[in-house]
Formats: sequence, structure tokens, C-alpha cells
Amino acid sequence: MSGLTTARAPRGLEGVVATTSGICYIDGEQGVLAYRGIDIHELAERSSFEETCYLLWFGGLPTRDELKQLRGRLAEERKLDASIYQRMQSVPKDALPMDVLRTLVSTLSFFDPDDKRNDRDANLHKAVRLTSQIAMIVACYDRIRKGKAVVQPDRSLSHAANFLLMLNGERPSKTAERALDIALILHADHELNASTFAARVTAATLSDMHSAITSAIGCLKGPLHGGANEAVFHIFEAIERSGSDPVEYVKAMLAQKKKIPGFGHRVYHTEDPRATHLRQMSRDLGRSSGQAKWFEYSQAIEQFIKADKKLNANVDFYSASTYRTLGIDVDLFTPVFAVSRISGWTAHVIEQFEDNRLIRPRAEYTGPPYPQHYVPLEARPS
Amino acid sequence: MSGLTTARAPRGLEGVVATTSGICYIDGEQGVLAYRGIDIHELAERSSFEETCYLLWFGGLPTRDELKQLRGRLAEERKLDASIYQRMQSVPKDALPMDVLRTLVSTLSFFDPDDKRNDRDANLHKAVRLTSQIAMIVACYDRIRKGKAVVQPDRSLSHAANFLLMLNGERPSKTAERALDIALILHADHELNASTFAARVTAATLSDMHSAITSAIGCLKGPLHGGANEAVFHIFEAIERSGSDPVEYVKAMLAQKKKIPGFGHRVYHTEDPRATHLRQMSRDLGRSSGQAKWFEYSQAIEQFIKADKKLNANVDFYSASTYRTLGIDVDLFTPVFAVSRISGWTAHVIEQFEDNRLIRPRAEYTGPPYPQHYVPLEARPS
Repeated sequence: MSGLTTARAPRGLEGVVATTSGICYIDGEQGVLAYRGIDIHELAERSSFEETCYLLWFGGLPTRDELKQLRGRLAEERKLDASIYQRMQSVPKDALPMDVLRTLVSTLSFFDPDDKRNDRDANLHKAVRLTSQIAMIVACYDRIRKGKAVVQPDRSLSHAANFLLMLNGERPSKTAERALDIALILHADHELNASTFAARVTAATLSDMHSAITSAIGCLKGPLHGGANEAVFHIFEAIERSGSDPVEYVKAMLAQKKKIPGFGHRVYHTEDPRATHLRQMSRDLGRSSGQAKWFEYSQAIEQFIKADKKLNANVDFYSASTYRTLGIDVDLFTPVFAVSRISGWTAHVIEQFEDNRLIRPRAEYTGPPYPQHYVPLEARPS
Repeated sequence: MSGLTTARAPRGLEGVVATTSGICYIDGEQGVLAYRGIDIHELAERSSFEETCYLLWFGGLPTRDELKQLRGRLAEERKLDASIYQRMQSVPKDALPMDVLRTLVSTLSFFDPDDKRNDRDANLHKAVRLTSQIAMIVACYDRIRKGKAVVQPDRSLSHAANFLLMLNGERPSKTAERALDIALILHADHELNASTFAARVTAATLSDMHSAITSAIGCLKGPLHGGANEAVFHIFEAIERSGSDPVEYVKAMLAQKKKIPGFGHRVYHTEDPRATHLRQMSRDLGRSSGQAKWFEYSQAIEQFIKADKKLNANVDFYSASTYRTLGIDVDLFTPVFAVSRISGWTAHVIEQFEDNRLIRPRAEYTGPPYPQHYVPLEARPS
């Protein structure tokens, strides 16, 4: 590294401002999250996922006509090439849903009518298409792996209701539809989270939308990112299997120096503002479905961890019980995260292309001091 | 961003030290590149790609037995699941090779015997497998899209010779084999280049090797990264088509404010040390094959740009003429880059897992000032 002006950044680039962005505002001290300046609480209470997509992609709220048009386009794009279904049929039955999603989103580039274009208009089309297609892939693959018939999309339904229809084979209740709609709004964007950053690093070589989104999906898969809500639910399952008291179970985990997933956040020093709504939804859904168990586990553990560790629940903690109560299998929690986050990922890729610069940091070399020398094979110790 | 300790980094994280790494040493001022402390010139002159893989993965040169074992394992892994061939057959005939490679590497995760494991040993196995498989996919897909029969691998050949055999359908000359071997050594690693960084960002969520490598391939695809040598050759083709003098053609491009690809590098302030060897190979190959034209174009343009713009040729500039003279199609230049860089990518992913921290920077918010307010649809201007 000698001779270069370099700044050593904190590990994991923590706190480093890697880019400017007009999409997502976070104030971690105050617990504020806003898309294009609008607070997440207002959006969760009053907006829809489709409107949130418009807000993220176009920078402001749509007019009535613009929203109608976008809803129409999202509904129209509820279609997949026949070969995508064939590929879902042909993956091994134990394939991880995130591996399937990553592979099929990469495959979608072959069939995208705008594949060879990389302008803003083409990328907005790809954003709409991918938002519809990812939801379809997640729902269809789950049915295919279970040996169930694929459910045809209903273009009259909202994005959330259509997803639940295609996943569960029946139209969801209004409560369930609204719960998923809110969950999709809450997960839609979160500034430079790891997967969005992976998408932007990929896009910044002037690669294409499908490459960037494929990177994001692969990155989201990791348990330190999208996988955390699955880890939360695995604890609930273990509690149920063992017949333990939730708090006693978590105490035993802590005694074994195990980390409890779903608590704390690198960015928020207060409650994660998304957790507020997910807690409420988890409670409402539990009551309306008669399955209050997962909410009760969640609440008991949250109260204990807050008192004992001074840690707040994050977005992952209450999404676990919410998703399960919606009939979503545990290993689909992360794919469902992608069903929402595709809106933010695509907004960030479009923004990256608008004012691009290659993202290429440096590493501090810590290997064998330069110069080592090449030793011919016959002179090496055997 | 208020209330957080944040440091605003230069655009594109230029000069920012994002991590420590013991793999690749670069001194941009002095024009030094070394793998594990051994200068790239010594490796290019005396080592082989297989030995370079060992060096990158294990941190030092192998003993005779270790090298023999690794060569054997790389040769053994020259095999692809039947469904990978079927998928190559089924992609549209105009699919971009990098899209095919990204998709099939993602698909390989389904068939990897260590897919559900993420320990060092499993990842070393994956590194070996992916190194062999990526070379096979690039060669086989090229034959399939041209309607030619797939060539079976020859396990007695070196990695470079086997690749050229499977690509061109005949055993390469010693000169061609050595030229590709050197090109593979030169491209094997380059510290935190964008694709390697994308791989590490992906791995840092504790996602898996195939996700990380899929991200890297998508990132490499971009014309600001792996695509640059293709852009160089497109200029040579345009020169040939138009019957222009190479220097006059480039002068006209500059007059139109066009950037000449293959010159300058964010990291090197001297000649890119890899260009030195590629220039020599381009010359030697041109002479031995009787196809000196591409080398002559390259040399004329290089001399002009160096005199006129004080810019040095980089790794991409002479790899264009070298690869073309080896019988590699222009749109395979970037895939061939991946055939080499897979060794460095996998080394970096393994290193990332050994001392991991989530890579999650921040963005400086530049959107509508917080708080904007949600306006009900009926109250919005139409």
C-alpha cells in the first residue's frame, strides 16, 4: 500500500459513508426510517406496497393515474417463461429456496425483453418485472417442491394478496393481506444494507440489473442478513419441541454464550422502527387466526432481553412470528424478504447508474512481506 | 445520518482500506504486484496456473507432492452434471456468455457435494471444483452455441491446455498453452478489485461460496471491469473494417471525447506490471501464428497514447490481442478472465470467512428533507 493516499476504514466499513443516496433516510439515534423523506410509520399505516414501489422508484408519491398504471403493469408482469417453471421442477427437491431464487433471477435475464439495454427506462421496466417475477418464483417453487399444483396469478388482486393466493392456494383474509402488505412496505428498503451494497458494487462496473439483483439475493441469503428471522423461528421451534419456558430457554442460550438473533442493529440505537409495526401485526394475526403461540413466545423473549441485555428487537424478530402465522414456511422467510426488498434494490441500482463510479476500495496487505522469492520445485522442502 | 460517527469516503471508495488481506500485495507507485509476497514477474516466468492456485489458496508454494495432488484434484473435477449441459443447450442462442456463466455457477450449488457446509475444508473443495467447472462451462458453452460437439476433457493436460482443447477441439501448441497459462497467472488475483469486493461483501453475511462467486461474475461482467478487453478488441475490429490507420482511428475517437479502453488504472501510477508480460505474449503469439496484425495495432496505439496522453497500457489492453490470437472469441474475453480470477475470488472468500465482519457502510442522504408527509391519494394533484 506504500505511496498511496489511503484511509483505513473501520472493520466492515461500519459508519463509513460509501455513497450519497436520495432513497432512504435513517437516523439511528432517533429510530427514524423514511423512504424519500416519508416516515415509515406513515407509510405502514396509510400506504400500500405498490405505492411504496412507486415512491422508491420515482422519488415521490404517485397521482391516482400513475398508481393505477403501476398496479396494472405489476399485475401484467405476473407471468414467467415456461422454462422457468421447468427449471423449478428440475432442481433437486432439497435445494434451498434462496439458491433457487438466485439461480432463477439470473436465468430471467435470458427472457427479459430489455436485457440488452441498460438505460433508465429499461431498468424501470426490469424493476417492475422483477418485482412481479420474484414473488411468483417464491410462491411457485414452494408449491412445486411440495408436490402441489402451481396456482395461477389473479391480476385483480394486490401484490400481497396475489402472493398469498399463489403460495397458499386460497385468497387470504383482509387481515392477512394487510399484514403482508405492511411487512412488504417495512422491508422494502434500508439504505446501504449489505445486499443493497452488493447490488450497487455490482452495478458500478456498469454491469446490468439482473447481475446486480442476483448479487443482492446471494448476499441476503447469509444468516447475518436476511437469514436472521429464520434463526429466530428455529428458536421458537426448539422451545416448542423441548416444552421449555421461552425465557428459560433463552437464558440457557445466553449461559452458553449463544447470541439471540433478532436483537440489536448496527444502525439503530433505539427500537428498530419496523419492529413496532411487526409486533402489532404479529399480535393481530395471532388473535385473528387463533395461533397466538408464536406471538406469546416473541413477547416473553423480547421483554426478557430488553430488561436483561438492554437490547431492542429488530425487524427480524417479529417478522418471524408474523410470517409463520401467515402460513409461510420458515425457509421462505428470507425469500419473502427478497419479495419486498427487490423494490429497494432496483431503486438503488437505477440511482447508481445515474451517477456512477466504480466501487473499488483497497486492502491493507498483511501477508508474507514483499518480496518473497519463487523457489524452484526441486529446491523446495518435501 | 445525524447523531452517528460517520466518515465520508471518497467516491467509489477510492483509496479506502476496506479490509486487511494476506493474499495480494500491490504497490501502485512502484508498479508492483505480488501474490503472497511473490512478485508477479517471477510467477509469470517460472510458475504455472495450478501452482498459483495453490499459492493463493494455501498461502505458500506447494511441495512436489502437494502440487501433484492439487493437479490431480483439478483434473478429477473436470466434470459437470448432465443437467448443466442440458441448461447450456436450452438457453437462447444469443445469450451473453457472462449471463450463462453467472447462471450456471449459481446452478452448480445444487450439485455441489459440500453445498450445505461452509467450513474451510468444504470451501477449499468448492474452490477446486469451481476452478475446473468454470473453465469447462466457458469452453463447452462456446461450442454448444456454435452448434459444435462438446469436447471431452483430457485429464492428463494442464488447466490451460485442457481449456484450449475443449474450446478449440485440438490440443494447443506449447506456445499457445504457455501463453494462456501465463495469462491465467497474471489475472488470478488483484486485491480488492470490484468483483472480489462484491464476493467479499456477499460472503460477509455468512452466505456461501456459490453466492459469493455468482456475485463476482455478475460484477466482472461490467465494461468498467472485466469487459474492458472486449472494448479494446471492438476498436481493433472497427479499425480493420474501416481500413483506417490505428493511430488515426484513435485520434478521431479522442477528438470525439471518447475514452480509449485499456489505458490507465485506478491503482497503478506506472505501467501495469501485468501488461509487460501480455505485450510480450501478444508479440510471440502473433509471430508464431502468423497473425501479427492485432499485436501491431496494439503496439501502434499504445505508443501513441503513451506519448500523447501519458497513459500506460493496463492488463486489458494486451490481453485483447493475446486472447484473440489464441482463438478465443471476443465475447469470451471476460469469461476467460473469470476462468483465471476464480482462483483469487475463492481465496478471498475463504479469507473473509476466517475473520468475518458484516460489510455494511452508510449512505449520506440527499433526498427530500425529512419529514415529508404522506398525502392521501384523493388529496394529491392529478
